Amino acid sequence: MMTSVNADWWQRKDLNRVDNQLVFAARPVSELAAQFDSPAFFYNAHRVTEKLNGLHSALNTAGFNGRYKIHYAMKANRFAPLLTYLKTTGLCSIDACSPGEVEHAISCGFAPADISFTNTSLSRRDLLQLARYKDVFINCDSLHTIRHIGELCPGRDIGIRINPEIGLGYGENEKLRYSGNASTKFGIYRDQFDDALALAKQYKLTIRKIHFHTGCGYLTEQLDAWDAIIAECMWFIDQVGTIRSVNVGGGLGVPHTHTDEALDLNRWSAVLAKHFLHREINIEIEPGDYLVKDSGILLLTVNSVEKKKSTTFVGVDAGFNIALEPAVYGLPFLPVPVTTRKGESQTVTLVGNINEALDVWYHNISLPPLQEDDHIVLINAGAYSSSMASNHCMRGQFKEFLLF
Amino acid sequence: MMTSVNADWWQRKDLNRVDNQLVFAARPVSELAAQFDSPAFFYNAHRVTEKLNGLHSALNTAGFNGRYKIHYAMKANRFAPLLTYLKTTGLCSIDACSPGEVEHAISCGFAPADISFTNTSLSRRDLLQLARYKDVFINCDSLHTIRHIGELCPGRDIGIRINPEIGLGYGENEKLRYSGNASTKFGIYRDQFDDALALAKQYKLTIRKIHFHTGCGYLTEQLDAWDAIIAECMWFIDQVGTIRSVNVGGGLGVPHTHTDEALDLNRWSAVLAKHFLHREINIEIEPGDYLVKDSGILLLTVNSVEKKKSTTFVGVDAGFNIALEPAVYGLPFLPVPVTTRKGESQTVTLVGNINEALDVWYHNISLPPLQEDDHIVLINAGAYSSSMASNHCMRGQFKEFLLF
Repeated sequence: MMTSVNADWWQRKDLNRVDNQLVFAARPVSELAAQFDSPAFFYNAHRVTEKLNGLHSALNTAGFNGRYKIHYAMKANRFAPLLTYLKTTGLCSIDACSPGEVEHAISCGFAPADISFTNTSLSRRDLLQLARYKDVFINCDSLHTIRHIGELCPGRDIGIRINPEIGLGYGENEKLRYSGNASTKFGIYRDQFDDALALAKQYKLTIRKIHFHTGCGYLTEQLDAWDAIIAECMWFIDQVGTIRSVNVGGGLGVPHTHTDEALDLNRWSAVLAKHFLHREINIEIEPGDYLVKDSGILLLTVNSVEKKKSTTFVGVDAGFNIALEPAVYGLPFLPVPVTTRKGESQTVTLVGNINEALDVWYHNISLPPLQEDDHIVLINAGAYSSSMASNHCMRGQFKEFLLF
Repeated sequence: MMTSVNADWWQRKDLNRVDNQLVFAARPVSELAAQFDSPAFFYNAHRVTEKLNGLHSALNTAGFNGRYKIHYAMKANRFAPLLTYLKTTGLCSIDACSPGEVEHAISCGFAPADISFTNTSLSRRDLLQLARYKDVFINCDSLHTIRHIGELCPGRDIGIRINPEIGLGYGENEKLRYSGNASTKFGIYRDQFDDALALAKQYKLTIRKIHFHTGCGYLTEQLDAWDAIIAECMWFIDQVGTIRSVNVGGGLGVPHTHTDEALDLNRWSAVLAKHFLHREINIEIEPGDYLVKDSGILLLTVNSVEKKKSTTFVGVDAGFNIALEPAVYGLPFLPVPVTTRKGESQTVTLVGNINEALDVWYHNISLPPLQEDDHIVLINAGAYSSSMASNHCMRGQFKEFLLF
């Protein structure tokens, strides 16, 4: 017996248990494991499309009728096959945050005009490289960037990333807070907005967009805060006569635990509609996590099951260096056995193969019996895993597969 | 005026300010910057040798007279030129924590017999690869590893990593705690030691070493705790008649701030002498940080200096993904300007070029005036930086240089 009443909250059509077998993207995961071994990330292309279609539907239902853009935040996962697939769907463009990402997106098939760029602390090298792509749209997050873009590309259309001074994020996770009471490096605050407008004018830059990003992983319960943040950004829009779009950033989250309530897309889009529908302003969003996090799983092999003092440790064949979120950001990846063995569940702690105290995948979870050579998957591993992976301890090997 | 009375605590013979110029490894850093640009890590080979010689001297002075080994924990920095240089000095052997590290150390010139291996959660693939190197010494950190090594290499000499249930580390940093009240995945506890001995006997493995590692970054003020930990491990030694060496792990730290008191090597070696000199037991240590952390600097370029609300942000051309310690582990890297400009110092926050809230190099530090294109270095960047670097946001580019 699992102790939680809602232990199977993560199950859905393309990720579920059939009899004692985990099925992902219409395949028994045991077959994937037999063919490809571990560690390996598998991404379900159809799940990404489904999430994208959900966003399109919610925005259209709310009345935007095509007056919006969805830029996929490629920093979440830049696996080339995934990017090219997204290009072919026509369902999204790209949010890039470095010149290297711009070039990679283009190498995967996106046109410069499909790319929205937002970043902080740009070097001269970055700026020169960006200036070469005349059609990449640049959101400037500081007076510094406005000045340099003005010098390199006078007359260009730009966006301004503003800082609304209200933040939100998954739970109370400080590591994922981008704006709030303490001043952060991101965006231009109210008290400098006049300077930003004057600089833009000096270089004949036309401000076409207001951009903000206030946190990661927001769900339905954060929508009131989300509403308040958008209200805050109206002041900025009202200072500029040339705004055509507001880019409300990313941050749309997915549930990590059985107590998380999924983001209600219709309530979410209704907030946007309330603020923007009566104006002649388009909407842009930059989801990353929302599109790919729960579209990906990480397959691992159990190396050992061993009780040490009062804790039973299940050791697997990869560590936090190939997927930082659980150890570094405190975002749990639920472990699910690929084949459910009969027998009494027990509480275990899932750990990796790195000699570091923080290398723990999941503390104290009730799982069916596990043995050496069993396979498990970690769900929600599709975003900010492979893209942030390192070769720490020379344990950086993993495979990636885009499944259709 | 710097506000701290001891703002230059980090200066030493090979890293200091001469007039207004920072000098490292007998070179003006401004010349390194002009030649190689940034981001770039520079390592002073002579500093590493000096640290190694200091350890040799302290151990010999305490009376060990060659009855010890120093294994360099290569996970701290595996830059191939550094490893090969260390091989040529003859001053240390290697501590490796994955089969990939073993192979890399060998590729850099070390012999298998120069390598001590300790790791957790070993896969079958790991174990098979390790079994190929008959001369690599393996410390087993679980019953699981003893059993598998026994099956693959019966009759071999092994070490056992034990868990002394007392931990220590830099400050009160929980992320760097390897043993303590809560049970961790590392080592074999007292209550399972009999099982470990029985398993070893079953496979005719001879236990030649006891190994433990209890935390990272300890300094003089932690030496009493260090003493207590070693006392704890005596119980394990006394259970086994065949112990020739005790490997007391790594964890020797270097100061990160002006309030940190450097590790007193003579007090440190005196603790070891007190416990081990009267026994016929050799000592092994596995320093990583201690040898390379303060032997390395990270050169960066200032992209922007801009006040946002009450904070002046200095943005540089690299982010936390190429050196995780400040953002992820809370270990500060002091920023020092390469050329000190005249003028009043101001309090600034040094930030990187990654769109993440945690991408801050240093909060609120008083620095001389800085301008765009100035260079700064971060000190203490020689360990766990490049070895843990990722290409997050495709901003993973950096260079590395071993200086003589």
